[in-house]
Amino acid sequence: MREVAVIGAGMTKFGELWSKSIKDIFVEAAIKAIENAGVDHIDSMYVGSMSGGLFVGQEHLGAVMADYLGVNPIPATRVESACASGGVSFRQAYFEVASGQSDIVLAGGVEKMTDGADVTDILATAADQEYEVYQGITFPGLYAMIANAHMHQYKTTREQLAAVAVKNHRNGSKNPNAQFRSEISADTVLNSTLVADPLRLLDCSPVSDGGAAVVLCAMDIAKKFTDSPIRIKASVQASDTIALHSRRSLTTLDAVVRAAEKAYIQSNLKPSDIDFAEVHDCFTIAEIVVSEDLGFFEKGCGGVSVQEGLTSLESGRIPINTSGGLKSKGHPVGATGIAQIIELYEQLQGRAGSRQVKNAHIGMAQNMGGSGASCVIHILEAI
Amino acid sequence: MREVAVIGAGMTKFGELWSKSIKDIFVEAAIKAIENAGVDHIDSMYVGSMSGGLFVGQEHLGAVMADYLGVNPIPATRVESACASGGVSFRQAYFEVASGQSDIVLAGGVEKMTDGADVTDILATAADQEYEVYQGITFPGLYAMIANAHMHQYKTTREQLAAVAVKNHRNGSKNPNAQFRSEISADTVLNSTLVADPLRLLDCSPVSDGGAAVVLCAMDIAKKFTDSPIRIKASVQASDTIALHSRRSLTTLDAVVRAAEKAYIQSNLKPSDIDFAEVHDCFTIAEIVVSEDLGFFEKGCGGVSVQEGLTSLESGRIPINTSGGLKSKGHPVGATGIAQIIELYEQLQGRAGSRQVKNAHIGMAQNMGGSGASCVIHILEAI
Repeated sequence: MREVAVIGAGMTKFGELWSKSIKDIFVEAAIKAIENAGVDHIDSMYVGSMSGGLFVGQEHLGAVMADYLGVNPIPATRVESACASGGVSFRQAYFEVASGQSDIVLAGGVEKMTDGADVTDILATAADQEYEVYQGITFPGLYAMIANAHMHQYKTTREQLAAVAVKNHRNGSKNPNAQFRSEISADTVLNSTLVADPLRLLDCSPVSDGGAAVVLCAMDIAKKFTDSPIRIKASVQASDTIALHSRRSLTTLDAVVRAAEKAYIQSNLKPSDIDFAEVHDCFTIAEIVVSEDLGFFEKGCGGVSVQEGLTSLESGRIPINTSGGLKSKGHPVGATGIAQIIELYEQLQGRAGSRQVKNAHIGMAQNMGGSGASCVIHILEAI
Repeated sequence: MREVAVIGAGMTKFGELWSKSIKDIFVEAAIKAIENAGVDHIDSMYVGSMSGGLFVGQEHLGAVMADYLGVNPIPATRVESACASGGVSFRQAYFEVASGQSDIVLAGGVEKMTDGADVTDILATAADQEYEVYQGITFPGLYAMIANAHMHQYKTTREQLAAVAVKNHRNGSKNPNAQFRSEISADTVLNSTLVADPLRLLDCSPVSDGGAAVVLCAMDIAKKFTDSPIRIKASVQASDTIALHSRRSLTTLDAVVRAAEKAYIQSNLKPSDIDFAEVHDCFTIAEIVVSEDLGFFEKGCGGVSVQEGLTSLESGRIPINTSGGLKSKGHPVGATGIAQIIELYEQLQGRAGSRQVKNAHIGMAQNMGGSGASCVIHILEAI
């Protein structure tokens, strides 16, 4: 396989973008990425999106976006893995370049969620329709069960969950593209509306519109466009049962564990080699579980680790979600996986401004779908 | 890029499969393909589906199908390009094997359309929602405009359109998996209900449930599993404007033209080297236009060619849609592109029974989305 680099990135602000259509949003991000990369063409493109059909009545998003971006007749493909659609978009673009089929490929993601759609019901189509959703449960409830089990099994506390939200809002306050740029206190989280016990409103990532795109390029060509291409060291994907009740454990996400194992083997790295990570904090408990399952902390120690500041931008051993994460940056589901890659790209190029991680050399992005039935992990490296 | 072969195939019967869920349908096809290939595992899988969300309320179909197929934790990715979702699924699997990332990959496609959903509206999400569908047009109307323009420009006749349906039903009558196994006469087509002038009911492919899957394998490993691997000679995809009114011509599908040009270059073949083809006859006019745009006939001569039998299984210079095509075999949209590959696979292995094309050595599959905004072409070869 050829070595592949990221050479450009662009995204919209995440938030309630009522004046922009799904096409406007994607095209804005894609043009920014192409301009940032400095390429005069792309050979192919991918669009990660969870449900253009249910959110805005538009499928066939590969072709739609190629048209509105003005790049016909190049191949344009939409991929979907629920909230991991962005990560999968990046991975398919990686294959296309690594295989030698194309040299320069755009990987984008987009979602338009605030146009009046019934968001909780639509997101629930990422769970098992027959055995979970039909019985009345949606994602806040599924993650609440994970939280309760983790609190029971490992003495994780409500305050530790809140610490995730507080940290990620602090990081997000430094991110000009974040949906929420306000710091919040633990008290605010603990007193926010109860959604699904023990999860409260400020444990949940928001409903967002947004688009994000990056340009991938064969490494041997990348140097024509940039002095600082970012190398893709690992691209791994794994699956788990779609329904939470079929898992061997409520507190371990096997798709994350299996993907991480393979990512470390593929990159010849170990958890302690990772300088910082973007992880899928759709709910605060998710960041805690994932930070354990990626091997950053012992199983059961994710909660205490965040509380002790081990994942903070300012002084953490491994800063997590320096972008603000899904919690504060926003979570337009199809765009999230690409936005994670963009945070890695900017950090590894030393262009993250007040969010900059010192000596950022290797970063990891972990993106997942549903309650963890799909997981995509990428490791990127500054060269 | 590594050479890649098809080493196994399986599909469900296409039709109104009321007793089977979308999961049942996909799993049946996938197990048949895996058993047919004789492999003891797959490294990864793709699911082509246009809109699990709108048809049956289930997205995240990669993870869902990996779970129900019992193959966790392998990567499982859903891809979508409207009615070309199956072709795109095959192409992404091809990249994954060609890149060296995986050795054995399943490419499947599925759609469950008869569960009471509003099919015409859902299919219309493959057109431009804003500038086409909102104005009231759906696909029968779009293809009717193409037909009218073709009849005006090239003197194509209503009888020539009917000849496509008659031929494809004759072929489909020989296909045990076809939805409609009855021969029909030109009179029956010409007197069927008017849908969108000049297209009548029997000019339209039906609404179908169905699943199809094939197993791709690196060529150097394929010989372990079969004496007759089928080589993938070309894999090409192209895009065009999503809306019909933005095209330079109503009677030429540029995505087909551009994809075909590249496919001939990639395979070092010319149209006359293709022994038979499966093309995307969602409406009878589509087969006529595509057979021209693939270079099988002069522009404007597609209608007279089918009428003169040049595309017939029995005596045609280039038999088209020996499977029965979308028209008679059925069109579960996400499965269609894979089912085309299966027809190629069976013909090239000489196992197509009463549908067998004599001396079938090279076959082409042409799959498209919407009114031709996306097109995927594959050329397969017996070795």
